[in-house]
Amino acid sequence: MATKKQINNLKYIFEPNGVAVVGASATSTKVGAVVLKNLIDGRYEHPVYPVNPKYDELMGVRCYKTLIEIKGHVDCAVIATPAITVPKLLEQCGKKGIRGVIILSGGFGEVGNKELEGQVKQIAAKYSMAVIGPNCLGILNPYSRVDSIFLPMHKLARPDEGGIAFVTQSGAAGSCIVDLVATYRVGISKFISYGNAAVLDESDMLEFLEKDKKTKQILLYVEGVRDGRKFLNVLKRVNKKKPVIVLKAGKSESASKAAFSHTGNVAGSYLAYLSAFRQAKVICAEKLEELFEFVRIFGQPMPKGKRVGVITNGGGLGVLTADAIVENALELPEFSVETKKQLRAILPEYANINNPLDIIADADCETYDKTIDILMKDPMIDSIVVIVLFQAPAVDDRIINILTDYINQKTKPIVVIAVGGDYTRNYRKTLEGYGVPAYSSPSAAIKALNKLVEYAHWKIKNKW
Amino acid sequence: MATKKQINNLKYIFEPNGVAVVGASATSTKVGAVVLKNLIDGRYEHPVYPVNPKYDELMGVRCYKTLIEIKGHVDCAVIATPAITVPKLLEQCGKKGIRGVIILSGGFGEVGNKELEGQVKQIAAKYSMAVIGPNCLGILNPYSRVDSIFLPMHKLARPDEGGIAFVTQSGAAGSCIVDLVATYRVGISKFISYGNAAVLDESDMLEFLEKDKKTKQILLYVEGVRDGRKFLNVLKRVNKKKPVIVLKAGKSESASKAAFSHTGNVAGSYLAYLSAFRQAKVICAEKLEELFEFVRIFGQPMPKGKRVGVITNGGGLGVLTADAIVENALELPEFSVETKKQLRAILPEYANINNPLDIIADADCETYDKTIDILMKDPMIDSIVVIVLFQAPAVDDRIINILTDYINQKTKPIVVIAVGGDYTRNYRKTLEGYGVPAYSSPSAAIKALNKLVEYAHWKIKNKW
Repeated sequence: MATKKQINNLKYIFEPNGVAVVGASATSTKVGAVVLKNLIDGRYEHPVYPVNPKYDELMGVRCYKTLIEIKGHVDCAVIATPAITVPKLLEQCGKKGIRGVIILSGGFGEVGNKELEGQVKQIAAKYSMAVIGPNCLGILNPYSRVDSIFLPMHKLARPDEGGIAFVTQSGAAGSCIVDLVATYRVGISKFISYGNAAVLDESDMLEFLEKDKKTKQILLYVEGVRDGRKFLNVLKRVNKKKPVIVLKAGKSESASKAAFSHTGNVAGSYLAYLSAFRQAKVICAEKLEELFEFVRIFGQPMPKGKRVGVITNGGGLGVLTADAIVENALELPEFSVETKKQLRAILPEYANINNPLDIIADADCETYDKTIDILMKDPMIDSIVVIVLFQAPAVDDRIINILTDYINQKTKPIVVIAVGGDYTRNYRKTLEGYGVPAYSSPSAAIKALNKLVEYAHWKIKNKW
Repeated sequence: MATKKQINNLKYIFEPNGVAVVGASATSTKVGAVVLKNLIDGRYEHPVYPVNPKYDELMGVRCYKTLIEIKGHVDCAVIATPAITVPKLLEQCGKKGIRGVIILSGGFGEVGNKELEGQVKQIAAKYSMAVIGPNCLGILNPYSRVDSIFLPMHKLARPDEGGIAFVTQSGAAGSCIVDLVATYRVGISKFISYGNAAVLDESDMLEFLEKDKKTKQILLYVEGVRDGRKFLNVLKRVNKKKPVIVLKAGKSESASKAAFSHTGNVAGSYLAYLSAFRQAKVICAEKLEELFEFVRIFGQPMPKGKRVGVITNGGGLGVLTADAIVENALELPEFSVETKKQLRAILPEYANINNPLDIIADADCETYDKTIDILMKDPMIDSIVVIVLFQAPAVDDRIINILTDYINQKTKPIVVIAVGGDYTRNYRKTLEGYGVPAYSSPSAAIKALNKLVEYAHWKIKNKW
């Protein structure tokens, strides 16, 4: 079990003054080369020290034979050398006073080398070092620009600064979501791929993030947790302060086997996990993409109830959204007499005044503006879903400003649904960049909204 | 009920020699303007005749005061004028010998004007005209370049020629999927948005597509069907020849109401529909996006069983795929001794030889090639799922050729999973363009694969 000091020392990994890249390389497809390049290209502001006895210089930076040789201050070492060399290097880190270490290298518990992994644990304890990994991608912190993800920047986009922390046991699953997050201009506070968790595990990360001021929501991907009780307790505590969205992979026996040979952790009974998640009231994702879909809505204000008002310029999309609302046990109330009267006054005669409100394919941005305004003011509506068929001739760029203005009121959650190809997707990206959650399907949007409603209900239940 | 002759006359809508656009306009956001522009820009090869008494010329083409005034041959008229004018125009179509008419205009049954809709029906019967609509987007045929979708081309992409026909009651829901299909370079044979179905309904369209040589698979979005028995019989017959994937919208009572004010059709009990779908053995989609996800896999050869082999360069994605395989009641068999031996010979020592096969993040294209080849030859594996973390440094463009070559063998279904941002999405688009089904999430891919397996099982069940 890691000590408080080790957990606190994570700060030397997230905001280090000086990073050493052990196993830095000139071969561009090698892990050590990609990490070094990403730190330099990513404009990490403190010194970077490549370490590899083979080189005197790498990418214009002096390369050191050993860690000990480095004169400057080093808070964090990223190790990308063969497993067998790691314990010795970790000892050198300890002696050099390095307090945070990321071990990217594989070849430990996941292939049966439990003893080697045990040595890592011992050395880390001896020097009270915070250690992430082994067999992981390490971390990404857009604020300090530390980036140990060994996937090239032109292949995997890096997110901007934001409020979402993402803790993942799987580097691949995690990095895919980071890529999506970055593509849609959703910001993150921290990304942590912790792999085998030889020293610090998911619970330790959650404990650190609980106090992290930049982190507002937490995403978590786990395969196998070693200390279930500790995990449950941390989840319970953290989720009260910051919503935790969790995906448990390795549900079935065959998938469990795959998880074991992945990070050397036993995936355990899915039912036990589900029961823990239910006790802790965390938000459960069942599919990888749901991590991304759910978290985007948690920047919205907490809804005061289950009643959803829907506006659409495409009838069928309204019908599908109504289906999803009913399936998710949300409510689709009839509009009040007053709201109907106001809507009637601004809509063409042939429009039917129902919820979902079909403002017809020829509706322009002004009609969106007026109808959203009416629903924002209606005390009988708790959340607003705005469906925009961007393909319609009368819809134009002004819709971005309109939606952003309502989002900035921060009074009711607003969710946008916009289904389609590249033209529509670009609008979704723009909206997300302005903090408007914008979904590519009615079912994804409503499922996410329901998670927000459930969380809000639990948090403020006495008021409902 | 439409006659055989009316159904057959659909050919004059899909492959017309001469199209009149009634209600053509110079105002670029008007329906009649968009349709005229799309026919001209889309390079429809026969004459186009704008009709509107206000203009002498539109977009460089002579404009006619009335349909009767046109001297040339006209097979199809697209009507985009107010509802009240439609019966008179339809009479003119009949007199002019026009055998196919698309009525885009709304304002009929969906707003209570049942009588007006009745008139449309009568006139169509009198002249044995095929009529699509009213209150619809009409059709798109990439082969003949007829296009009555009144959404501008720069906002809604148009698909290439292909084998998928898409019949939809909702123009909005339908056009969004067309947009996605086009973005991913998946081809279609025909798109039909039939709206209120005053004359020809979904069953008539299916009957027409049953014999259409270009159509290999059929997508269907329905809200409410008027003649359930006819629908069930047609579904049963057509689905035996060409897989039919269907989405029923308006499942709940509130959604039903929305559907009624959308196309004037009663959505009916969802359970009754489900029972019909089960009887007909059609492929059921539950969400809009599933229409797109399911249909892409139906270009693959029919699998001979449920046994899936998985290759991945990202462990966590393999675990998630294994979860999805088990959830969908597909099988994830252990590899045979012979296959294990072959895999062992080509993989690094630290790779675990299991199914899912984790070929590790540093696997290059050659490793993909060799491992796919081994699974293609293994008689104990019926389908192959290839997970590609395109973000990994060692994966490059060659993977496209490798996957395309195996797809072209047409012996086993191959499904690709590639999760991520724009870089990865571009690869998915490229793969789809070459006929390789490529999914953005493990759950979507495996659910689609399962639909193919179920359909194959039913079609060739005696052989399993």
